[in-house]
Amino acid sequence: MKIIVIGAAGTIGRAVVERLGGHHDIITAGRGSGQERVAIEDHASVQALFRRTGAVDGVVVAAGALHLAPFHAMTPAQFRIGVDSKLMGQVHVALAAQHALNDGGSITLTSGIDACHAIRHGANAMAVNLALEGFVAGAALDLQRGVRINVVAPTVLTESAAVYGHLFPGFEPADGTRVALAYQRSVDGPETGKVYRVY
Amino acid sequence: MKIIVIGAAGTIGRAVVERLGGHHDIITAGRGSGQERVAIEDHASVQALFRRTGAVDGVVVAAGALHLAPFHAMTPAQFRIGVDSKLMGQVHVALAAQHALNDGGSITLTSGIDACHAIRHGANAMAVNLALEGFVAGAALDLQRGVRINVVAPTVLTESAAVYGHLFPGFEPADGTRVALAYQRSVDGPETGKVYRVY
Repeated sequence: MKIIVIGAAGTIGRAVVERLGGHHDIITAGRGSGQERVAIEDHASVQALFRRTGAVDGVVVAAGALHLAPFHAMTPAQFRIGVDSKLMGQVHVALAAQHALNDGGSITLTSGIDACHAIRHGANAMAVNLALEGFVAGAALDLQRGVRINVVAPTVLTESAAVYGHLFPGFEPADGTRVALAYQRSVDGPETGKVYRVY
Repeated sequence: MKIIVIGAAGTIGRAVVERLGGHHDIITAGRGSGQERVAIEDHASVQALFRRTGAVDGVVVAAGALHLAPFHAMTPAQFRIGVDSKLMGQVHVALAAQHALNDGGSITLTSGIDACHAIRHGANAMAVNLALEGFVAGAALDLQRGVRINVVAPTVLTESAAVYGHLFPGFEPADGTRVALAYQRSVDGPETGKVYRVY
């Protein structure tokens, strides 16, 4: 199958490409690298991506920014970072992908463990990541032609623990290879409207 | 205590004013009616509201639009309705209120039963309502001076069933008087970071 991986150069993206590359044709995409360039915050950029690739069988998104900072000093513009990037960016992909996918194709988004397990300074991250879980549950019921949508909620990755681990004290990391399995379940499995929690 | 109710003219807002009015000083607020006018989608409008009222002990928000429509025909602009109004609107109130509230003051937002119980054409509503639950859980951990934040997730109201009931087939409605109790628990109780589910 032909699968687009958006955010293919990131820690999760690389693991997903490694996991799926052996049995699927992967199109790597990203803001500044990959076979295709796309800025998910811009719906027109996402639509242009699908026009260039033509019909595909799956799209995986492992991209999107959040704003982790103390709420008492946060501005609306800072809160908008997660809303415009990780939430609306992935919604843009789903909105466009539903028309670009072959029958039975899959959309796989990325949430995070903090959707359901609180972290300090997490008001923006927790709102956005939990929003994605509600979004997938709702969109799955409306999608047509057997198109499926799921979301993976990973814990902090072992490979990222040096950078992000301090934000998740006592949280058990997971290797990228293990996290990538959840993306494979979504792409190669039969389910829709599911949250795959890797933790 | 001095409590602002935003959306005071709505079905929930009226019930909350009725419930709290006997033992608190209520300031009614709304887009087109009430003692104070405010458009929650505009952070400056929310900040101006708090400048006019001065320090208060609580703010209740029962306002914010969603977009219920089939996902396969939805546009990004339509999805933005819920994101900009019910999500960012209530975030705006929380961001401004944390600085305007007296010590120990409370912020009470409004989600909905579809945050956790799917409805047809609910991708936008479910994303936004669940986002609010993540937001409150995160913000509660950062708020200072004993300021509290909770969210009420009501089922469809009996008083609204004629208009909205068809969107919630088989869902048990609740009277406004019962829903208002949850807002009172948030305002008069000790808790923070909670979701009060009325269903």
